[in-house]
Amino acid sequence: MTSASRTTSPVLRPVLPPVVERTLMPAGFAAIAGSAGIKASGRPDVAIVTVTTPAPATAAATFTRNLVAAAPVRLSRAHLAATAGRARAVIVTAGCANAATGAGGDADQARVANALASAIGCPIEETLHAATGLIGTTLPVERIEQAVGALVGAGLAATEDALGNVVAAMMTTDRRPKRATVELLLPAADGGGADVAVRVTGIVKGVGMIHPNMATMIAVLLTDAAVDPATLGAMLRRAVRTSFDQLTVDGDTSTNDTVFALASGASRAAPLVRDDGIAAERLEGAIAAVCRSLARQQAADGEGATTLVTCTVTGAADETDARAVSRAVVGGTLVKAAIRGRDPNWGRVAGAAGAARRPDGSQVRLVPERLRISLCGTAVFAGEPLAFDAAALRRAMDVPEVTIDVDLGLGDGAAEAWGCDLTEDYVRENAEYST
Amino acid sequence: MTSASRTTSPVLRPVLPPVVERTLMPAGFAAIAGSAGIKASGRPDVAIVTVTTPAPATAAATFTRNLVAAAPVRLSRAHLAATAGRARAVIVTAGCANAATGAGGDADQARVANALASAIGCPIEETLHAATGLIGTTLPVERIEQAVGALVGAGLAATEDALGNVVAAMMTTDRRPKRATVELLLPAADGGGADVAVRVTGIVKGVGMIHPNMATMIAVLLTDAAVDPATLGAMLRRAVRTSFDQLTVDGDTSTNDTVFALASGASRAAPLVRDDGIAAERLEGAIAAVCRSLARQQAADGEGATTLVTCTVTGAADETDARAVSRAVVGGTLVKAAIRGRDPNWGRVAGAAGAARRPDGSQVRLVPERLRISLCGTAVFAGEPLAFDAAALRRAMDVPEVTIDVDLGLGDGAAEAWGCDLTEDYVRENAEYST
Repeated sequence: MTSASRTTSPVLRPVLPPVVERTLMPAGFAAIAGSAGIKASGRPDVAIVTVTTPAPATAAATFTRNLVAAAPVRLSRAHLAATAGRARAVIVTAGCANAATGAGGDADQARVANALASAIGCPIEETLHAATGLIGTTLPVERIEQAVGALVGAGLAATEDALGNVVAAMMTTDRRPKRATVELLLPAADGGGADVAVRVTGIVKGVGMIHPNMATMIAVLLTDAAVDPATLGAMLRRAVRTSFDQLTVDGDTSTNDTVFALASGASRAAPLVRDDGIAAERLEGAIAAVCRSLARQQAADGEGATTLVTCTVTGAADETDARAVSRAVVGGTLVKAAIRGRDPNWGRVAGAAGAARRPDGSQVRLVPERLRISLCGTAVFAGEPLAFDAAALRRAMDVPEVTIDVDLGLGDGAAEAWGCDLTEDYVRENAEYST
Repeated sequence: MTSASRTTSPVLRPVLPPVVERTLMPAGFAAIAGSAGIKASGRPDVAIVTVTTPAPATAAATFTRNLVAAAPVRLSRAHLAATAGRARAVIVTAGCANAATGAGGDADQARVANALASAIGCPIEETLHAATGLIGTTLPVERIEQAVGALVGAGLAATEDALGNVVAAMMTTDRRPKRATVELLLPAADGGGADVAVRVTGIVKGVGMIHPNMATMIAVLLTDAAVDPATLGAMLRRAVRTSFDQLTVDGDTSTNDTVFALASGASRAAPLVRDDGIAAERLEGAIAAVCRSLARQQAADGEGATTLVTCTVTGAADETDARAVSRAVVGGTLVKAAIRGRDPNWGRVAGAAGAARRPDGSQVRLVPERLRISLCGTAVFAGEPLAFDAAALRRAMDVPEVTIDVDLGLGDGAAEAWGCDLTEDYVRENAEYST
């Protein structure tokens, strides 16, 4: 046994702005949700967000890399390509993934697009689509067409409650709504040095990557900042990489994963046309903070989960290694089971770290002699096992968020990842999902 | 819905010889097992197999690729390098992995090697080592030294029972002993066209890759065939690739995974010095059959498992794709949970297949329109969902082995993989392992 004397490598994550867990509505958007009878429960299952400014919003997206991509993913990809990043409306349906449904599924989603475009009066290509639910089942298209017409006819509202209803309609096995708002100041469009208030609000459904084929996650980010599609897309991709992509190693397996970002420009902030400078930094920080908050909320709400597990890796040879190791640790089935039992079984952390792979399949750089592990702030390994009070550590682990810090002692690469514990309830829920 | 009219791609696996689940002892080996008090239960936890021929046996091995490799793995690698593939004895200890134990762990394992070598009278480098159990705990070296002396003094036996005792001593959470023997005929060393009977017998512990940091699996293959180290190594690597490597995608994450193959040459079969020709084909077929049987037994004995899950992939663009897809399917948490509930939720199979990655991180070749899936022989998807009797399929799935057939419809690549269902018992067992 040795004492934990070596200095731990620092986390290099930039400071992010504070987040409130609300659905504060940015200017230029309106929302509504209702039921089309897709969910057997009869709960709301159709949600629409529209852009109320004269011009369509700037739009960017990231989608699942699963080769069995759902019909709404394929349609949204095509629409964003056709408009070069403009959108007038987003529709989310819950209860049926419309995935692995063949050509019939594509035709169904096209009918949804038609209904939405004609109801709000916009080109079909300016509609974006996401769906969540069981793979291989068919959308009740006629009921959705009717619901879209009725909802748009009833009138969308630019309120916190309306967007809150959207979150509720998107939920499937989610236990809690997941939403986040950052308010920031950006230089005004009319110059003169004044700043205007801008919001970035995000909502998400999907309890982590824990059940990836339920169309794991659908996120919608709205902002009233003004930004061009390329800049918004770059900011979104970077934010996704350090948030949703770090939920677990299964992060890219869903057939339906979708993150949309829409910028209305309604705040009268000066348009951002490149992703450097102080204003761009502020907006990107807000987007990153919203995504990170949503990802953490997803992990905490994991199916059957009792505990959020956060793994912070420092000292990696590069950021790619850090991301891989942190994801491997929170994604490790045995680590997840150990957290369930409040078991300070750090050997499982070492085992998961040692087996981590980079996206190209190569091994991460890891030297066991330089490896250091802490659980909930208690150092347990530093090249060899450290003596610790197991009973005290068990008690320290009995908290809503268990932290695992891994220092590879090799370089400056740092990353975070989030997961949850594995429980009996998870198995029970997922053994009987389709019936 | 369409009918399942397209012809399914054939499985191209060569026919393997029949296996008996016994520990029939090949000539030239002896074994014994006993207790050194490593296991808290007091059950046997030290097992020794020695080579009784005048010359040491030919030896080959495959080890974990985990960067946190255990001390016994590091020592065995060094010994095999020093002897260029010769061994006199194998020692397996259970209850402590001697992994992540730093320099002290290496020193402990060296003392075990010393004790074994002096007890049986061989160079230290001719001892091979494997350990299984909790990571980060320290071997009770003095008790092991005493046990080794006492066991060797008591005398090893060349019997089926003695090797059966070795299996029992290796077990940790295993519920059943796992062993396989193939008997084959090989040309005799003295020429003249006569064949001699040869045995290949394998034993394994570790219930799949389901709890990889318990030092997942230790396998020992013994044969009285005569074969040089390079040929034996090539045969072993190929057999491992289509057996133990196909248990799940976590197959390479343990700190202690070890497969040893020892060939005594005591059968008086003609020495094999290359891996082609009919005799080599027979020996390799026997090794492959033993490994495949052991892997299937491991999957069926998975922690908390009730059901063996076999995924056969055909029609892949190449064998690498086929291996990746079959492993992704049986390794998918949601697939495993669905099998638990006898839920014909084939969408989870499609989702897992679509997200499969080759070892280099690239995506497999998969075209949803060509994808076909069958569960327990019932076609459920062929480019789009097929109609099937869900109640009848549920009943058909209520068997000890559930089969999932995936045809990618693209080429001749084929592979099998094995896993098990995910149950509440798995979570319960693994939430409280270290305490």
